[in-house]
Amino acid sequence: MSTFDSSVKAVQWINDGVRLLDQRVLPADVRYLDFDEAGQLADAIRDMVVRGAPAIGITAAYAVVLAARSAYAQSPEDWRKRILPQLQALAAARPTAVNLAWAIAEMEKTFADCDADPFPVLLARARRIHAEDIDANIKMGAYGAELIGQVQGVLTHCNAGALATGGYGTALGVIRSSWDRRQLHKVFVNETRPWLQGSRLTAWELLQDGIPVTLIADNAASHLMKTGQVQWVIVGADRIAANGDVANKIGTYQLAITAQHHGVRFMVVAPRSTLDLNIASGEEIPIEDRAAGEVQGYLEQSAAPENCPAWNPAFDITPADLIDAIITESGVVERPDPAKMQALCHG
Amino acid sequence: MSTFDSSVKAVQWINDGVRLLDQRVLPADVRYLDFDEAGQLADAIRDMVVRGAPAIGITAAYAVVLAARSAYAQSPEDWRKRILPQLQALAAARPTAVNLAWAIAEMEKTFADCDADPFPVLLARARRIHAEDIDANIKMGAYGAELIGQVQGVLTHCNAGALATGGYGTALGVIRSSWDRRQLHKVFVNETRPWLQGSRLTAWELLQDGIPVTLIADNAASHLMKTGQVQWVIVGADRIAANGDVANKIGTYQLAITAQHHGVRFMVVAPRSTLDLNIASGEEIPIEDRAAGEVQGYLEQSAAPENCPAWNPAFDITPADLIDAIITESGVVERPDPAKMQALCHG
Repeated sequence: MSTFDSSVKAVQWINDGVRLLDQRVLPADVRYLDFDEAGQLADAIRDMVVRGAPAIGITAAYAVVLAARSAYAQSPEDWRKRILPQLQALAAARPTAVNLAWAIAEMEKTFADCDADPFPVLLARARRIHAEDIDANIKMGAYGAELIGQVQGVLTHCNAGALATGGYGTALGVIRSSWDRRQLHKVFVNETRPWLQGSRLTAWELLQDGIPVTLIADNAASHLMKTGQVQWVIVGADRIAANGDVANKIGTYQLAITAQHHGVRFMVVAPRSTLDLNIASGEEIPIEDRAAGEVQGYLEQSAAPENCPAWNPAFDITPADLIDAIITESGVVERPDPAKMQALCHG
Repeated sequence: MSTFDSSVKAVQWINDGVRLLDQRVLPADVRYLDFDEAGQLADAIRDMVVRGAPAIGITAAYAVVLAARSAYAQSPEDWRKRILPQLQALAAARPTAVNLAWAIAEMEKTFADCDADPFPVLLARARRIHAEDIDANIKMGAYGAELIGQVQGVLTHCNAGALATGGYGTALGVIRSSWDRRQLHKVFVNETRPWLQGSRLTAWELLQDGIPVTLIADNAASHLMKTGQVQWVIVGADRIAANGDVANKIGTYQLAITAQHHGVRFMVVAPRSTLDLNIASGEEIPIEDRAAGEVQGYLEQSAAPENCPAWNPAFDITPADLIDAIITESGVVERPDPAKMQALCHG
């Protein structure tokens, strides 16, 4: 296990409960919220107190610990049965990220090892999921940095950083690693409307680490590419299908199209828990539609006319043929296809 | 001249001065500001009280009337010389839209006809520029509607409507005309960060006319195209080079790339005053960089960390080979190239 200790902690197990950094109010406020009940954590995931596929998975793992602790206290005999509705509510909190379902399934597998009080066994498993995620990020960071080599600049979208993971980050892990190796001069980040994960979270996170970041409107990405300021686009993923298609934050797809148009390379960085071999292609990945209000304005500031209809798909699908490399903790898959993805999972 | 009377009036000559609809505060406030001094109008153009290439041109024409009136009152002998600095300040207010320079040049040509008090002659010329713009928009609306025929949906970017012109609009003129002919079922509009012309202006303007509009984040445009909901992207232009390259609001370029990727057709609608034959290609068009603050937040709402650097190019260049049609008041140019653009100007 890695000894890396991120200064930015999205999820922590602390005081026998879960502490989340409230990502809805960053960067204006650095506020932590404490939870000791699984249902509250399902709400927190839905409301985006915590977001980012790996961080959601870790939060769900800890939520299962809380659910089991409470159910066992009430009924040591049938706690496994009693927590099922809570696990279902957790799994339904966000539909697109597969890490959520993956983490719950991992915790359920551990149920068999719980002869008596499940709390210590489940907590140990959740802690291991958390630690392995950080470890995976550091490995991916090294693989990614090696692949890109010396570059002038990179562009990232949304937040695939410490805030979206157990720590260190996926896409931002590659950027951190490249920066530490002095391979990288400048990081551009799309502000990432509508929720502004880029300006609120990624800019904040990179500034914490002293990595020079320049914010752009999502609309400026192609002009940035055309002016030769970036050689790679580096993003995370919420789910990767068996053929290498990637679900990620809305806007990722058009970055991939325009990167190809400019000869800018396109990298997806995600732990193996993001792979979903039950899904043949991106067409089958459910895309979450979120509230119109996110597009109609920002926080307290309304922009659109009252009652103007808005469509707010939160994710899109980037087909594998637009992706130069998928990085997992197992290594680099260049030009992903079904055979390579299959080999990765069973490698 | 057209008898069309737009309910939305960005620029009016009224009470011997210029009245602008303050586009900085729409749609929350419908506020008009009155001007009787050319220097104030240069400031208003720079501050985006009025925006949109044709509307800027019309405003500048009226500003020349005000400058001449004031200079003639002070010095009937050398008013032409005295107003030169004001004309230069006007021309420098926004660098990308060529209609500004065009309108000032048109007004200067009229100086020769001013034997005595220049006011009536210049006002008549400015009014004619204004009326001809509306007339051109209505012609373009008809040409564009004829070209697109029956469609399910279209996507527009920024605001190329009555608010950006003398009235009726360029891109929105085509949309209005198609809607009136019952050829069009749904209009999508990109919110158009950073200044949100789409959500604040275009959504408002279309709702005024009862045309069904759905707002999307700029990031959702490619996902929209992929889901088959739009057959055309329709935009305006701030300057068109001799080879058919188009400068327009930042984000237009990536819309054109992604439209081509999806087989969605791409139309630019602009009056002939937007053509600049002195510019061989888009590479030579100056791109205005605006303040970082526009990207760091929205109005009173800050989003990015304090002092986070941002890059804010306000326009980008869409190369002619990504454009299916350029519509002017002279007709339709399909697959624009230098020969066709040359023919258009001398036709």
